[in-house]
Amino acid sequence: MASTISERELQFLLYEFLDTESLLRRERYTEHSREVFDATLDAARELAEELLAPHLRQGDEQEPVFVAGRAEVAAPTRAAWQAMADAGFLRAHWNVDEGGLQLPEVVLRAAMSAFYTANVGTAAYGLLTIGAANLLRTFGSQFLKDQYLAPLGDGRFAGTMALTEPSQGSALGDIKTTAVAQADGTYRLFGQKTYISGGDQNLTDNIVHMVLARIQGAPAGVKGISLFLVPKMLPDANGDHTLRNDVVLAGLLHKMGWRNTTSTILSFGDAGGARGWLLGGEHQGLAHMFQMMNEARIGVGLVSACIAYRGFSESLAFARERRQGRLPSCRDPLSPQVRLIEHADVRRLLLAQKTYAEGSLALCLYAGSLFEDQQSHPQQRRRADARRLLDVLTPVVKSWPARYGAAANDMAIQVLGGAGYTRDYPVEQLYRDQRLNMIHEGAEAIHALDLLGRKVVAEEGAGLGLYMETVRGDAQRGAQVGLQDEAAALLAALERLGAVSAVLTSLLRTDPDLALANASLYLDAFGRVTLAWIWLKQGSAATTALRAEDARTDGGYYRGKLQAMHYFFGWELPHTQAQCELLARCDRSAYDMRDGWFA
Amino acid sequence: MASTISERELQFLLYEFLDTESLLRRERYTEHSREVFDATLDAARELAEELLAPHLRQGDEQEPVFVAGRAEVAAPTRAAWQAMADAGFLRAHWNVDEGGLQLPEVVLRAAMSAFYTANVGTAAYGLLTIGAANLLRTFGSQFLKDQYLAPLGDGRFAGTMALTEPSQGSALGDIKTTAVAQADGTYRLFGQKTYISGGDQNLTDNIVHMVLARIQGAPAGVKGISLFLVPKMLPDANGDHTLRNDVVLAGLLHKMGWRNTTSTILSFGDAGGARGWLLGGEHQGLAHMFQMMNEARIGVGLVSACIAYRGFSESLAFARERRQGRLPSCRDPLSPQVRLIEHADVRRLLLAQKTYAEGSLALCLYAGSLFEDQQSHPQQRRRADARRLLDVLTPVVKSWPARYGAAANDMAIQVLGGAGYTRDYPVEQLYRDQRLNMIHEGAEAIHALDLLGRKVVAEEGAGLGLYMETVRGDAQRGAQVGLQDEAAALLAALERLGAVSAVLTSLLRTDPDLALANASLYLDAFGRVTLAWIWLKQGSAATTALRAEDARTDGGYYRGKLQAMHYFFGWELPHTQAQCELLARCDRSAYDMRDGWFA
Repeated sequence: MASTISERELQFLLYEFLDTESLLRRERYTEHSREVFDATLDAARELAEELLAPHLRQGDEQEPVFVAGRAEVAAPTRAAWQAMADAGFLRAHWNVDEGGLQLPEVVLRAAMSAFYTANVGTAAYGLLTIGAANLLRTFGSQFLKDQYLAPLGDGRFAGTMALTEPSQGSALGDIKTTAVAQADGTYRLFGQKTYISGGDQNLTDNIVHMVLARIQGAPAGVKGISLFLVPKMLPDANGDHTLRNDVVLAGLLHKMGWRNTTSTILSFGDAGGARGWLLGGEHQGLAHMFQMMNEARIGVGLVSACIAYRGFSESLAFARERRQGRLPSCRDPLSPQVRLIEHADVRRLLLAQKTYAEGSLALCLYAGSLFEDQQSHPQQRRRADARRLLDVLTPVVKSWPARYGAAANDMAIQVLGGAGYTRDYPVEQLYRDQRLNMIHEGAEAIHALDLLGRKVVAEEGAGLGLYMETVRGDAQRGAQVGLQDEAAALLAALERLGAVSAVLTSLLRTDPDLALANASLYLDAFGRVTLAWIWLKQGSAATTALRAEDARTDGGYYRGKLQAMHYFFGWELPHTQAQCELLARCDRSAYDMRDGWFA
Repeated sequence: MASTISERELQFLLYEFLDTESLLRRERYTEHSREVFDATLDAARELAEELLAPHLRQGDEQEPVFVAGRAEVAAPTRAAWQAMADAGFLRAHWNVDEGGLQLPEVVLRAAMSAFYTANVGTAAYGLLTIGAANLLRTFGSQFLKDQYLAPLGDGRFAGTMALTEPSQGSALGDIKTTAVAQADGTYRLFGQKTYISGGDQNLTDNIVHMVLARIQGAPAGVKGISLFLVPKMLPDANGDHTLRNDVVLAGLLHKMGWRNTTSTILSFGDAGGARGWLLGGEHQGLAHMFQMMNEARIGVGLVSACIAYRGFSESLAFARERRQGRLPSCRDPLSPQVRLIEHADVRRLLLAQKTYAEGSLALCLYAGSLFEDQQSHPQQRRRADARRLLDVLTPVVKSWPARYGAAANDMAIQVLGGAGYTRDYPVEQLYRDQRLNMIHEGAEAIHALDLLGRKVVAEEGAGLGLYMETVRGDAQRGAQVGLQDEAAALLAALERLGAVSAVLTSLLRTDPDLALANASLYLDAFGRVTLAWIWLKQGSAATTALRAEDARTDGGYYRGKLQAMHYFFGWELPHTQAQCELLARCDRSAYDMRDGWFA
């Protein structure tokens, strides 16, 4: 199954890197078993291979079209959507009393990774629908849940998040869409939203838009934003969703990649107002929406990891097959050509991809396990800690896999050479698809500002403190299994990062603009330390496993993990030194640059 | 003229960074003047703006099609080609007695940069034709020159380089195309070539293919390769080129970008043999072809710089116009949104692009000036030195602008955010177009092996010694104008690079495979030192100019140059330390990685 994620990798991440089996001791999961988890993963991989992977290229070439006011996507998308829904993946994590299976979040995410690896353009409809339904589960009134939850769970309806507007981009405080309260307790919405993924499609009869808007007369800025549920179709007298709401598909955006997910411009209220329901409290919309945004951010991290993983797999397969050239030491032109993988530089390109892709996957599933702990850990303190640690990590989880995933997909093309630049192989599409991930769910700089300007200073630095304590604990455990060098390198980098954090958070109070000027560099340094930690954790698990193996049946897999860890500690972590020096002196190169000097 | 390169930038690079006016003292250029140079540049910029830039998108969307055995490109391509030819750009550098203007190489390249910036897919036909004609000028018999030179110069014919074959890729020693000698002194060629840019098109009546092939019975490997001129059309009894040669367009390759340049599969000899003429000596083909390859490599570097420059210009214009968000220090949601360029991180993305793009441009024009000196410098020793220095620099000139140009084009998208990911703006196309440059004219690893395995050790290290001596001299000059800190940082990095070079060249003798395993990292470190040097040279020129300016009319331009230099020295050069540490200990992460460990 080369088009999706390997079973071995998911097994390692869930059961060796993470201790997913320990969830079975929690009351919520007593009815489950590892067999159920594994069967879920197998089902996802099979579905991915059979119904998602085959139309990866078709979804790119047959871009969604605007037909009679509606977006139409490539035909096989519908069968894939239906199968994902029918197999229960949209609601597997719901409580049994909601109609779900109470599957742990981390297992669901591992399962979804199979879909993302096979075909992100199609799988994204599921990601959005799951997030919208979760928002409804948290903030919806019983009336709204009765109306919309079941069909979101079984795939009759899909969900979106409608935040961005044409004149505001990343600055949510400036949104202008207005909600006017009606006598019946509903609202009428007026405004335009853009870049709305899945904002229209021909997969479902109805679409549930989660819309940020201002109630007429609300305060300016983020404090005046409320959250609304605005369906594409409204219920008729029989309760069937047959009446068009005043939400119109105003246009489709044509993207470089990720084409099979429609990107839409939606007009609300051109004909009297789009009917919507308030979700949660008035003016609390941004805080509420952060639930979906944070979920989506971890989702985008995982998607990025999966696209990188797919490129890695594709280029690995090519490098194992294709023969070209000879080693530098070989002077005999009549000797047979060697396989690409025998060239050291090709192995570098593959090893770096493995490091970025598997490191990102591990990071995102680790984040999934924190999400899980935050909800289901039996100890209150551990739930709070999981929330706190996940808060700090979220900007990294969103951003690192996207940036280094793009680097990995670049390398996948390079392994294939000229072939990789043609549309005869999937790696060029993966490169295009991946590029979106640095932009959507908040452009990279937004997460950098979030990390340094908010997460690191929140609760007087409690989150950062917990992060450092956690990394130190895992470094110690790494040293105990024999990875002393890596543990020491990680701790040194961690202390540098801590020192720089102190300098910057102090400056934040007196000169926030300057302190945040290099926030993106801080995010990158933070990400490198984080990934070194994740790799040390993987290396520790691999070391332990290698020791336990008497028959050495699977030694190669673990040795590969260790080699990837070595690569990361040799090639990526050391650059944090130069980065932290720049950060410590608050480099002013960009800050001082003036418009007129650009010429 | 936002779609092409700025006049100010070319003026700075030619007359302040380089001393192009000094060429006027050489005998070859006594008839020229700065006015002629400037008029040439103006004409190129105007042509670029009027006939190339307008169909950048069209050439991407209307990909070349295969019609009745021939490739057809987007219609406006023809007018642009004709205008470039009519204005004399294909032969401006030829001697007057060949029909040229004896324009210096470096001025011609600066002029071509206007075309590349506006529309590389169309301009590339000129790049290839110029290179093919130069090869003919050097190695062609009088008969061949009489037949082909004039029409290549006036754009009636175009040229290609036909090296790669389906089963050989980067390893030229393994090509299989065979040439069979005929009684009349010509040859018949049989074989298939692939990835041949411009291998067919509907711009010219004839195409002159420069083909590498083996004469029947030739030795194996690179020592058995010869160079042939194989035209698409053969002369009839009247000397008109009306008869089809046995060269058939077997297919078009569909690429991610750079689409308006056809990429072709060509079959030679399916119907009895394609008629060709030997160029230069038997079995000397690869050495001869290196003239065109080296020219094309500098050309690809320049193209990369130009695509990066275009992305920089586009994103700068967007950032100056578009308003979004507020500074971190502003807490008033009712205050007006600021322009993107007022955000420090956006300025970082712009400054980094400026640094990569203008640094690459400067490097490539510097290489052009070495090419010039190699041919026209009055002193024999200086001609030899120019050749030697250019030999060492060529792998960097080919590779650095491609890799960092891609990073720049990535940043251009990021400045635009979601808009940058749509096809409504050119930055996504530039990102796709740029990606080819790390592959064609030798994939990056090939240049890394060339640099460390050949160039650095050639003539007992004479080239490397000259490089270091040249950099030291310029560092000293930089310190003299006041850039002591940068000079010291550059020298320290240079010495580290020198020390690592010694370690690796020593290892090359005993274990070439291991010594070359990290050649790509060596290339990157070498590139960073080189670009720091190029930026110090630009910074020195800017410092001198700022001092000389009493009215400070153009101070902003020079301050921008200095700020870009600061950025490079702060953000890019320091990473050579971690790189050189890895190189010095011959890191084995990738080298030791085994196929089976990849899982």
